[in-house]
Amino acid sequence: MSNISVDTITYKQLAKMFDHAILKPEHTAKDVEEGCRLAREYDAMSVCVKPCDVKQASELLKGSDVLVGTVISFPHGNSPTAGKVAEALQTVEDGAVELDIVINIGHLKSGKYDECQNEIKTIIDACKQKNPKVIFKIIFENAYLTKEEIVKACQISVAAGAEFVKTSTGFASSGATFEDCELMRANVPDNVQVKASGGIKSLDQVITFMQKGVTRCGSSSTDKILDEFKKRRNM
Amino acid sequence: MSNISVDTITYKQLAKMFDHAILKPEHTAKDVEEGCRLAREYDAMSVCVKPCDVKQASELLKGSDVLVGTVISFPHGNSPTAGKVAEALQTVEDGAVELDIVINIGHLKSGKYDECQNEIKTIIDACKQKNPKVIFKIIFENAYLTKEEIVKACQISVAAGAEFVKTSTGFASSGATFEDCELMRANVPDNVQVKASGGIKSLDQVITFMQKGVTRCGSSSTDKILDEFKKRRNM
Repeated sequence: MSNISVDTITYKQLAKMFDHAILKPEHTAKDVEEGCRLAREYDAMSVCVKPCDVKQASELLKGSDVLVGTVISFPHGNSPTAGKVAEALQTVEDGAVELDIVINIGHLKSGKYDECQNEIKTIIDACKQKNPKVIFKIIFENAYLTKEEIVKACQISVAAGAEFVKTSTGFASSGATFEDCELMRANVPDNVQVKASGGIKSLDQVITFMQKGVTRCGSSSTDKILDEFKKRRNM
Repeated sequence: MSNISVDTITYKQLAKMFDHAILKPEHTAKDVEEGCRLAREYDAMSVCVKPCDVKQASELLKGSDVLVGTVISFPHGNSPTAGKVAEALQTVEDGAVELDIVINIGHLKSGKYDECQNEIKTIIDACKQKNPKVIFKIIFENAYLTKEEIVKACQISVAAGAEFVKTSTGFASSGATFEDCELMRANVPDNVQVKASGGIKSLDQVITFMQKGVTRCGSSSTDKILDEFKKRRNM
């Protein structure tokens, strides 16, 4: 994928890389409205909103081809399984079709791998029963993990049936790194994708992530990055 | 309460001010074990653990008079009501008797006061049915709020039946301030208590909070602060 560059990709290819994040705790109904308008205008793949805002985003994006995504047990992944399942089911009920679930970071770091895997599988199975089209991204929060734990989290996510592995929440001390994305790409099969998120603010960053095999980015700088692309391509 | 000082309070009075926090996303089963041992040794009021760790803490503290507390929709308060209720019920089932619930910050800032109040009341009612002795603290996350929003959050919490209002999660850009605690104390009735948390690291801070009417502190520096008290009192 090293032949990817600003000159070889189309606007649509780039725009559909983006889950536009509207996730700050202080974000209001007005921020959700503006974020959804922006995602529609720029033709992003999806918005990624707080679970409590899925209903609003679903109504705002009805009839568009921008998907509604959300986050589960965000940003600490600290909920017991029953809490994560109930939260996930409610968001599916409210219209979310992409769910980014934070792995239980503490349990992962405690070596409770079976518990982590069973939890993710339980959530996925429950939601797929409600809507088989929903896809799942597992957030690792690499800032807290060793390289070995990142590899383990890849294995757990794949075994549990996730469609994506994802680097970060954007709320830890560090976000997505090229090195971690390479490691994750190398440790999941071809049919599982890698999403980079956390600190993604420039076009060149996104292009480099794409070269590393990343197929989705979470960012709140969607408009800035896509404007930069148009400028560089004289669009 | 201005007559409170290091010389006028007992060790027990001070120790029972503390909810010992073991809340970091990267905290492991071993950290929970050490934190519970510490809370027992120092005779804290409670431990405040991640919801996924309540079961472990309950087993570790069985037979002691250190209570088990936890946090709901922590730290962003972004879960839909169904998710918060399921999480809260699971932690009560697992042995938690003090629940610190993060208010829906975005909804509060959007002026959706009835929704915020109904959500908190729904959680409290559901848990009290399971165990009437459980008490509830509502976390505002003052870092994101105006003074007017803090007052509104006090009114909402009181109307919903909470026993405490609480300043912060410890995961935002700022934590408890003396000024906010005075404001909160002035805006809840006498039977509702104020808990300060976030950035509490010294004995003098705790004493000043007590002088402002604060009756509970959340801290991960419980041992350091209580050691300082013993040193200053030549215990």
